[in-house]
Amino acid sequence: MATPTIGLLSPGDMGHAVGSVLRTNGLTVLTSLKGRSARSRALAAKSGIDNAGSVHALVREVDILLCIVVPAAAPDVAHEVAAALRATNSTVLYADCNAIAPRTVRLIGDTITAAGGRFTDVGIIGPPPTRPGTKFYASGPAAADLAILRDYGLDVRLLDGEIGQASGLKMCYGAMTKGLQALGTELLVAARLMGLEDALRAEQRESTPDVLAWVERSIPTMPPKAHRWVGEMEEIAACFADLGMTPAILQGAAEMYNFVAGTPIGQESPEERDRSRDAPGVVAALADALEPAVPS
Amino acid sequence: MATPTIGLLSPGDMGHAVGSVLRTNGLTVLTSLKGRSARSRALAAKSGIDNAGSVHALVREVDILLCIVVPAAAPDVAHEVAAALRATNSTVLYADCNAIAPRTVRLIGDTITAAGGRFTDVGIIGPPPTRPGTKFYASGPAAADLAILRDYGLDVRLLDGEIGQASGLKMCYGAMTKGLQALGTELLVAARLMGLEDALRAEQRESTPDVLAWVERSIPTMPPKAHRWVGEMEEIAACFADLGMTPAILQGAAEMYNFVAGTPIGQESPEERDRSRDAPGVVAALADALEPAVPS
Repeated sequence: MATPTIGLLSPGDMGHAVGSVLRTNGLTVLTSLKGRSARSRALAAKSGIDNAGSVHALVREVDILLCIVVPAAAPDVAHEVAAALRATNSTVLYADCNAIAPRTVRLIGDTITAAGGRFTDVGIIGPPPTRPGTKFYASGPAAADLAILRDYGLDVRLLDGEIGQASGLKMCYGAMTKGLQALGTELLVAARLMGLEDALRAEQRESTPDVLAWVERSIPTMPPKAHRWVGEMEEIAACFADLGMTPAILQGAAEMYNFVAGTPIGQESPEERDRSRDAPGVVAALADALEPAVPS
Repeated sequence: MATPTIGLLSPGDMGHAVGSVLRTNGLTVLTSLKGRSARSRALAAKSGIDNAGSVHALVREVDILLCIVVPAAAPDVAHEVAAALRATNSTVLYADCNAIAPRTVRLIGDTITAAGGRFTDVGIIGPPPTRPGTKFYASGPAAADLAILRDYGLDVRLLDGEIGQASGLKMCYGAMTKGLQALGTELLVAARLMGLEDALRAEQRESTPDVLAWVERSIPTMPPKAHRWVGEMEEIAACFADLGMTPAILQGAAEMYNFVAGTPIGQESPEERDRSRDAPGVVAALADALEPAVPS
């Protein structure tokens, strides 16, 4: 693999940013825009990601196929790619980069390898990589082959161990960052609804300033991402349940993000988000969306 | 009320420390040890809290009665005190200092005032007050009368508004501190069970150091308190559900604390706790308690 050609499914919020970095570093990046939204088409065009047409055409042309989709879509995309691999006798390296439970990623790995592909488990930790600090943790026997992308702008980090390790790490990390944001959002909204917002902030500033600061830094960019995080929280819940612990904390986080996704500010795209809206502004908007349900 | 006599139900972990501070500052503190454990009797004796014998005798002798019990016991204690108030025609100021939902505390307030007592809602935030930094937030029409305890070592802070405000503040604050500890404990145990403990800590130290540090500072003292926190998490879940939001995050926290309370380290008393056991040590002990349930 001298200079690999990269396939990308699909050019959404995270995907188009990954494609953009690889393009900037000189790689050809292809996708299939069949059935994709106008927004995905626009993001692909903006990032210089070319349209191969179909998934069949895509797997014929690429060396590495990065799958970056919403968690719930990951198994279906893998089945579609597996069918294309069989039809074309392709042997691409398929990197599942989604926020899914180890058990789910092992099933997807089986789907891809049974169809003749090679497979690596990837967990992306950090913001879209057009900003610094994003790591692509990879595990499984084929993970080392993904390290070539270090030469093209991605921070690929190899984990010891089998398929599932990279996803397991992503689950634990996502539980902390997105679980805490869901919890913090809920209690700040509760305080506002009870008329206790100022008293709570004062107390938290006095005794848990680091945690409050982290939550308030995170909340402003959260609402447009909430719809994507619902499935991720459900995958973490399944992962923890598989280990013998309660899934409820993360199921509750999924319910919070589902609520946020249904509010007016949850329906904005990241591009549309009002950048002047701070954490108290988000909390106020969410409390407003709940107010009719509050008992008098 | 020149020099008030204080009643205390009951001299447990938090209660005996509150009694000890009031005693040290010159007040007489009484309790009823009828039916209490050997440990409560020992904590009372250590703190100079005298035994009035029965709850009837207690309400006859005190001006202010502080109720500090596990959340699930709060309504029953209030009913027992209400019966004693009726039987003795007493008019004590009853301060419910428990971690309970505003709806629960309003019911308890009605129970006490219908029996002739006066009532204030109190939320205790912080460690047992023998260490610094503990605040006694109070709300309701009679809250101002509790401020006299400022002269005897307690940091009483008056909140505007009715019965329920102090408890509401305690619910939101407890959601942050104990909700985050439950979440952090769960994901650290998950990481350990998946062989990802070192990788996760390394990633968290790189990108969420403040939150990791807060969680790891909190975990060592948590197991002996877990049994008390189960009911508190259930009260917060009820409070959030009353406001129209999901109770699941906090129900899950209750399930985590219930699990911790059932492990060997959860069955130690605060005095028995191994003070050399750090956060990784607690995580290891909890993972060991789970291991038989992990699928191979």
